[in-house]
Amino acid sequence: MSGSAVLDRSGQESVLEHCTGLADRANAAQRRLSLTSGSERAQALGRVADRLLTNSDTIQEANQADLSSAADMGLSEAMLERLTLDRQRIKVMADSVRQIADQTDPIGHVMAGRVLQSGIRLSKVRVPIGVVLFIFESRPNVTSDAAALCIKSGNAVILRGGKEAIRSNAITTTVIREVLADVGLDPNVVQLVQTTERAVVAELLKMEGRIHLCIPRGGESLIRTVSEQARIPVIKHYAGNCHVYVDGKCDDQMAVDICVNAKTQRPSVCNAAESLLIHQDAVQRGLLNRICDALGQKGVEIRGDAATRSVCAKARAAKEDDWSQEYLDLIVTIRVVDNFEEALEHISRYGSQHTDAIVTNDVHVADQFVMQVDSANVFVNCSTRFSDGGEYGLGAEIGISTDKFHARGPMGAADLTTYKWVARGDGQVRT
Amino acid sequence: MSGSAVLDRSGQESVLEHCTGLADRANAAQRRLSLTSGSERAQALGRVADRLLTNSDTIQEANQADLSSAADMGLSEAMLERLTLDRQRIKVMADSVRQIADQTDPIGHVMAGRVLQSGIRLSKVRVPIGVVLFIFESRPNVTSDAAALCIKSGNAVILRGGKEAIRSNAITTTVIREVLADVGLDPNVVQLVQTTERAVVAELLKMEGRIHLCIPRGGESLIRTVSEQARIPVIKHYAGNCHVYVDGKCDDQMAVDICVNAKTQRPSVCNAAESLLIHQDAVQRGLLNRICDALGQKGVEIRGDAATRSVCAKARAAKEDDWSQEYLDLIVTIRVVDNFEEALEHISRYGSQHTDAIVTNDVHVADQFVMQVDSANVFVNCSTRFSDGGEYGLGAEIGISTDKFHARGPMGAADLTTYKWVARGDGQVRT
Repeated sequence: MSGSAVLDRSGQESVLEHCTGLADRANAAQRRLSLTSGSERAQALGRVADRLLTNSDTIQEANQADLSSAADMGLSEAMLERLTLDRQRIKVMADSVRQIADQTDPIGHVMAGRVLQSGIRLSKVRVPIGVVLFIFESRPNVTSDAAALCIKSGNAVILRGGKEAIRSNAITTTVIREVLADVGLDPNVVQLVQTTERAVVAELLKMEGRIHLCIPRGGESLIRTVSEQARIPVIKHYAGNCHVYVDGKCDDQMAVDICVNAKTQRPSVCNAAESLLIHQDAVQRGLLNRICDALGQKGVEIRGDAATRSVCAKARAAKEDDWSQEYLDLIVTIRVVDNFEEALEHISRYGSQHTDAIVTNDVHVADQFVMQVDSANVFVNCSTRFSDGGEYGLGAEIGISTDKFHARGPMGAADLTTYKWVARGDGQVRT
Repeated sequence: MSGSAVLDRSGQESVLEHCTGLADRANAAQRRLSLTSGSERAQALGRVADRLLTNSDTIQEANQADLSSAADMGLSEAMLERLTLDRQRIKVMADSVRQIADQTDPIGHVMAGRVLQSGIRLSKVRVPIGVVLFIFESRPNVTSDAAALCIKSGNAVILRGGKEAIRSNAITTTVIREVLADVGLDPNVVQLVQTTERAVVAELLKMEGRIHLCIPRGGESLIRTVSEQARIPVIKHYAGNCHVYVDGKCDDQMAVDICVNAKTQRPSVCNAAESLLIHQDAVQRGLLNRICDALGQKGVEIRGDAATRSVCAKARAAKEDDWSQEYLDLIVTIRVVDNFEEALEHISRYGSQHTDAIVTNDVHVADQFVMQVDSANVFVNCSTRFSDGGEYGLGAEIGISTDKFHARGPMGAADLTTYKWVARGDGQVRT
């Protein structure tokens, strides 16, 4: 493998020169990419999927080297598990790239159009955003997802991963760049920043007009740091404090299954539930008891209000700041509410506008929940765990946005585009 | 008229308290507004249009008082003209509000939807953004446009106009707030900041999560100041350096008409052309000469490259920084290009990604221009002056965005919305 994916900064080069080089190469590559057809981009991605599989052994070797260093650095078992790429995970990476390849091309999609009074034919057409700076931690499979979504949507990407995954990210990037070169595209559509100097990220975040969007994906401190330093727009989500509200009228078994799945199926991710709100009618017929038992069997620690603790003896008292926590662990807060409005008020006050779910049999209550809960993802009678780009049919996601514009929720290729207005006339001038 | 629209800061209140009050009232009003139907919002706007007409005399009186003060302050004739509200202009304000009322409701629009593998029914639905801070200069008719677009799209707005228009803005806001109260909506959907303390704007721009979007509309220095201070997202356009490229193959009379209209029909606005690029084939058959004559008759000063000056004796030499200028005046730069690529390169280098037009008879050249020019508005065979929310059928515009996401070009009610993902299931949990 060539070292061409490794964009380490040479001794003579200043931080500014290094970053300018990254941005200039990305912009030139993106201009060429924007002239390709959807089928050219899809074919390139199909070949990336193939090449990831045929290079599975080489990728695993590089990953092993990362894992050894990481173990020496004293990373936790959970972190090491996230960092690991085995044959099965590389297949999942390739499958995801192929799914992205197979989607309808977002570029050129006519979003709206009309003939104006003057006879001008106006249309609003999807185009790429430009150059995306993607900053991420740990999981090396995210590298191929992000690169594939950017290629699909006609954008260039500058990848900045964590240092613990540096060899895994480098080999993945190299595989993708080789395919791009083979099919006649500019490999600089995908670049990896391999220096760990913080000054490089700080400089890239100031490159207004040359880098068009930053997506940080990681812990809250990473996202806060990026947002505070950036002069370029940042798509972010700070936290996933997701709620399940169990209404008075509901299917009790469904409520138990959804609460347990939302909390325990994968507690370390942002779409896992952190708080349960139980209507008092459900409590009175024993449903809270059933939910607490089922969670207890999965080893979940419960922190509850007084009403919860009176039913569930093992529960500890929830403190005020527990209601805002994203535990990412087998801990849950539970509150008994007198009515629907109290549940809405709780979610509005403590929620993070990520994903909130209701379990109910009442269609009117469901409609009101959907209308009044101001979150990026609002679910009726299903687990919060479905809030995911793959599950939504986006192939993968480059992030989940709790921002209130541009994009919300899981972001796929179409969410990496903007539009331009095109007007075709036959000589119209304005009077 | 009551003083309820005048949110001047009282002596005891701190800047932070004042701004918190504005934001809290706006959020409470927006929550109520978000529960209204599209027809309720449309009816309210219809009544605003009526009330502007019946209050035409009162509005003109307030405007006269602004004009007297402005004349005392020594504002230019052009500024006084922009500030003036006469019966006809108030009718245009009312007509614009009525057009916005009559548009299809953007809220609730299902943008995409599918049934997932698990049977969950997923949809992506338009919802309001929340609270918009709108900062604008001079023209008081913008007040009613901005308020109407925000009401239509279910958002609350905090208006901050220029001090020269303070009485005109206050009476317009009061009229709108009275209608809102009459129809049972919270008048705090529309609030006017009437203190001119800069610290108030600076504080509002930091209110992440309580104010969701800022739209500054005015000169470049206003927009730069806002962008630099803001912790909340800002939709902006810095400049409109718009180009008309006249291709070698074109209808000569059409080229003359479009160049003259784009430059002179209203030179003070952002969609007026500032630069003309003429293909040498067109020059050789005398078209540059015709264009220069026609511009000369309208009193336009020409600054050209050497080839332009050899045809047009009156032209001054264009300096390097002339090509980047937004004159907003009867001045134009003209350059002769050897080929289409040179025109593209010029627009890419000097343009502001606002509005660029081509005049051509060649459909392939037109297609390449549309594809390769990376501007919010790309026009074929019509004047750049059509780049306008009213002309686009948006009723009005709250701004023109040269940003690369969320919204580009003229922004109407639909561009003041975001979406949420709604999933309806029957008990699905993730495995």
